[in-house]
Amino acid sequence: MGDIKAPEYTVHVEDNRKGVFVNGKLCKDPSMVIVNEFFFSGLSELASTANKVKSKVTLVNVNILAGLNTLGISLARLVFEGYDLNPPHIHPRGTELLVVMEGTLLVGFVTSNPNKLFTKVLDKGDVFVFPIGLMHFQFNIGKTNVVAFAGLSSQNPRLITIANAVFGSKPSINPDVLIKAFQLDKGVVEYLEKEFISN
Amino acid sequence: MGDIKAPEYTVHVEDNRKGVFVNGKLCKDPSMVIVNEFFFSGLSELASTANKVKSKVTLVNVNILAGLNTLGISLARLVFEGYDLNPPHIHPRGTELLVVMEGTLLVGFVTSNPNKLFTKVLDKGDVFVFPIGLMHFQFNIGKTNVVAFAGLSSQNPRLITIANAVFGSKPSINPDVLIKAFQLDKGVVEYLEKEFISN
Amino acid sequence: MGDIKAPEYTVHVEDNRKGVFVNGKLCKDPSMVIVNEFFFSGLSELASTANKVKSKVTLVNVNILAGLNTLGISLARLVFEGYDLNPPHIHPRGTELLVVMEGTLLVGFVTSNPNKLFTKVLDKGDVFVFPIGLMHFQFNIGKTNVVAFAGLSSQNPRLITIANAVFGSKPSINPDVLIKAFQLDKGVVEYLEKEFISN
Amino acid sequence: MGDIKAPEYTVHVEDNRKGVFVNGKLCKDPSMVIVNEFFFSGLSELASTANKVKSKVTLVNVNILAGLNTLGISLARLVFEGYDLNPPHIHPRGTELLVVMEGTLLVGFVTSNPNKLFTKVLDKGDVFVFPIGLMHFQFNIGKTNVVAFAGLSSQNPRLITIANAVFGSKPSINPDVLIKAFQLDKGVVEYLEKEFISN
Amino acid sequence: MGDIKAPEYTVHVEDNRKGVFVNGKLCKDPSMVIVNEFFFSGLSELASTANKVKSKVTLVNVNILAGLNTLGISLARLVFEGYDLNPPHIHPRGTELLVVMEGTLLVGFVTSNPNKLFTKVLDKGDVFVFPIGLMHFQFNIGKTNVVAFAGLSSQNPRLITIANAVFGSKPSINPDVLIKAFQLDKGVVEYLEKEFISN
Amino acid sequence: MGDIKAPEYTVHVEDNRKGVFVNGKLCKDPSMVIVNEFFFSGLSELASTANKVKSKVTLVNVNILAGLNTLGISLARLVFEGYDLNPPHIHPRGTELLVVMEGTLLVGFVTSNPNKLFTKVLDKGDVFVFPIGLMHFQFNIGKTNVVAFAGLSSQNPRLITIANAVFGSKPSINPDVLIKAFQLDKGVVEYLEKEFISN
Repeated sequence: MGDIKAPEYTVHVEDNRKGVFVNGKLCKDPSMVIVNEFFFSGLSELASTANKVKSKVTLVNVNILAGLNTLGISLARLVFEGYDLNPPHIHPRGTELLVVMEGTLLVGFVTSNPNKLFTKVLDKGDVFVFPIGLMHFQFNIGKTNVVAFAGLSSQNPRLITIANAVFGSKPSINPDVLIKAFQLDKGVVEYLEKEFISN
Repeated sequence: MGDIKAPEYTVHVEDNRKGVFVNGKLCKDPSMVIVNEFFFSGLSELASTANKVKSKVTLVNVNILAGLNTLGISLARLVFEGYDLNPPHIHPRGTELLVVMEGTLLVGFVTSNPNKLFTKVLDKGDVFVFPIGLMHFQFNIGKTNVVAFAGLSSQNPRLITIANAVFGSKPSINPDVLIKAFQLDKGVVEYLEKEFISN
Repeated sequence: MGDIKAPEYTVHVEDNRKGVFVNGKLCKDPSMVIVNEFFFSGLSELASTANKVKSKVTLVNVNILAGLNTLGISLARLVFEGYDLNPPHIHPRGTELLVVMEGTLLVGFVTSNPNKLFTKVLDKGDVFVFPIGLMHFQFNIGKTNVVAFAGLSSQNPRLITIANAVFGSKPSINPDVLIKAFQLDKGVVEYLEKEFISN
Repeated sequence: MGDIKAPEYTVHVEDNRKGVFVNGKLCKDPSMVIVNEFFFSGLSELASTANKVKSKVTLVNVNILAGLNTLGISLARLVFEGYDLNPPHIHPRGTELLVVMEGTLLVGFVTSNPNKLFTKVLDKGDVFVFPIGLMHFQFNIGKTNVVAFAGLSSQNPRLITIANAVFGSKPSINPDVLIKAFQLDKGVVEYLEKEFISN
Repeated sequence: MGDIKAPEYTVHVEDNRKGVFVNGKLCKDPSMVIVNEFFFSGLSELASTANKVKSKVTLVNVNILAGLNTLGISLARLVFEGYDLNPPHIHPRGTELLVVMEGTLLVGFVTSNPNKLFTKVLDKGDVFVFPIGLMHFQFNIGKTNVVAFAGLSSQNPRLITIANAVFGSKPSINPDVLIKAFQLDKGVVEYLEKEFISN
Repeated sequence: MGDIKAPEYTVHVEDNRKGVFVNGKLCKDPSMVIVNEFFFSGLSELASTANKVKSKVTLVNVNILAGLNTLGISLARLVFEGYDLNPPHIHPRGTELLVVMEGTLLVGFVTSNPNKLFTKVLDKGDVFVFPIGLMHFQFNIGKTNVVAFAGLSSQNPRLITIANAVFGSKPSINPDVLIKAFQLDKGVVEYLEKEFISN
């Protein structure tokens, strides 16, 4: 059964005993794969958005849609209540291509050094691309909800929320590093580390 | 100015005289790039769908959004009137990850030999993945409109509409090949070639 | 024993208990690899070609030559009796580079949309390239046998025989999809689905 | 002269009129390449380190060593005076593998969310790896000089200095975004933007 | 005309003025491409083999078949008269998959350090794989001709004939290097350098 | 715990029972990874160099620094006593970028056919690049020690020492092959095979 050895899909499986080895790599036995492994149904209802600085982002990546394994793409739905912010962050593994479904959204990205900002206000039907590895943000500058969808060029693009990586890592970064790097008083750094770690 | 030599974006440019060489590759001079090269605004209004077998697909690829160059992703909006079909086709360069915004859609893909069909009916908010290089279709099985968005894992995923490639190429494939391959009468093949070429 | 961890070859092995993990990937223990894993001996005798629409193609891929694992190449021998056809098909993962050893062969490939046909009659010693992902065919237009060899740029290029994927999938594609896509009568579609599924 | 078409090296050239096209890509005519294009001589003398928060980093990338083009590697020499800091930054395109030649260096990197810090004090002869795309820093925690070398897995790994990208971009990021993202008072954000932009 | 921007084929062109830029890369204008750019006709007649240590190898790579550009494959025909040798050599960019058409051939490859030899005698119809980057040879151990074909996993696999690279480079390698490396007398090294350079 | 499924690092582990499967690939459980897996401490003391033709090279690759897994880089320290030679060799998987820390070093590489030698004398602080897959050497032409560091563009660049691969493989290459390839007397070949195999 040559089919076992190189199927078009290598559906992710976590449990060693439930998988087979396809070209030396553990995946679900292709003959056991069912259509639901290419299907995800969780984006129909809009969730509430109660957290402080983050918009509500639902990412459909390989962790919740096993059929995406090795295929180099994922999808996100973004919902912003009035004045919600998706704070400056980086996807180290993927470009993001966003389309606004409703509402008005201020977006921007910053190039690597020297740091040039590209920014734009998007309305319904507008599309914007955030190149891989660059810091970017999305901000609902109005009081009406914003809904957007984004394709990302990775089955798992990863996320580095800048403020959290700097001030909220576990364990904390040596405060002397942050004081020097950000030109901040010791008190401000200590306050920020307390804020972000408790998040 | 080392920045010229390896920017994060290599915005597409067609005219030799308007470009610079970045690592030996022609692209727009990075210092001349403006935010609108990462922006596209054509998806706001829904277009009418008048052609015979094709749904209305609008693809935002590198050809209309130059900032996508080298970034490995594109986006499509699909609009289906009642009983519209996006006929069996292949994207030789990209996986498609689709989300239904409104309406009900029958979708399916067929694996390479042996040819197993995976099929599913999708409702609003449902997500489905069509792996790269496999034949697939989308069919509005109701009379209400369907709107869907898809991310594709290529800046230019290309499209092979199967019936057109078989019966509508220019010049036509030798009819003896098609008669034998599809087990069809000569008359049927000639009828089909006439149909598809005139499209 | 650093050699275990990254050999030049990662010979395919299916049985977990007979393999080792090389950079996290199951493969045959390199110290147990023998020369016969780089060797295949099945192409010496010419096989008879009795099936209806397919020529006799013997593919030497990673499934029968385990040493090809990760090396990105495979080989095919094609034998055509008089008027045999290798019907329109696609290799989604590999370019095919063919050389004719004896006989005369009509070959062609069709680009993705818009569908342009490139076609050529090949004689002994002629070489032709079929680019990855494009529909192509080979047809013995004479009554003498044709023998050809082809290199393919993948250890497992996969095969989509178009007519079988369209009319012979299991389960069958909804006939309404095929009627609409191919502009065919319901009777013709039902006849074709019966033909190809019984193959 | 087939040799023109695919040399082992594709030496970078900026001026269209001085290059040839090798597989469609502009590079220096291989027959004109001289040994000095694989050679760089600037690392012998130690430079002074006078700027405020940055250590003295000299990067030998494709911009100053044209022979590195397409070869996927570059090299950096890092010199830290007493208590110098190489502040939190990201190389979006390369992993960094560092070896300390003299002195004692505190290093660390933070994973993407959730943000785990890995940190270590390095002495002479110690080696440390900073995986691609992750925020990291190096800090001379003593008063004696530190000298280190690093290999990077890209001919141009790029650099995002976090504090500068956040507070020093041109133009500035909307202060409301930073106030919300970093939980800072408006006054602090305005102070920081002034600090970093004037750098 | 989006088709210009990302065709399936990027046919090689050497002259800047005859090409177009496809995604920033010079290639023949796709609308001008003709079928003969996917076709090569030089392998029909067998050439005489008169040179001292080399068998007659005809390589169909991108330099003589422009349509191979970017497709990752090439083809070689090998003809050996009685006792002809294809001496130890390396293809730094491609795996070689060889099939013997007539005659008997001794083949072998040597792994990287530690240097293990894999060797085999091949008869008509036998297939053997030489993994990328490893030293290998083919030797006609009989007096009857051998004809073989090989697929290679690169459009231009390059060739390093070991003896020529060591003793026949221009300019010559410092004899002290070769004396020490090969444990040879100065006289033998000087003899060999004279032999190989005059080739 | 989606974090398990695609961490930034996939630390190498050899024992099946101590690993987890990350995207189907065995690696150390990311939650068990500790900082020392990104750290190596063996380069601080200089080792003696007593072997005949080889300089003392210490390679920090994935085999001794498990955190390098999948990251595409390694590091070597090279120590040469007076007149030590690192004999002609090839890294089939990586480019080498070398910097001299002390002493004077003659270096060179030879292109694939036709074999052009690029050679240079390096002093302290000089940098030189040896492109992937090409034969190269380093020779201490003075009596004072040389110390150099090199980054290599692979987690395991592999090493083919030319003289050993030719004359010292196990089993030996058929002497007739070497006599013919190198234009050497049978006696010289037998002497060399004895020399290199006993090494």
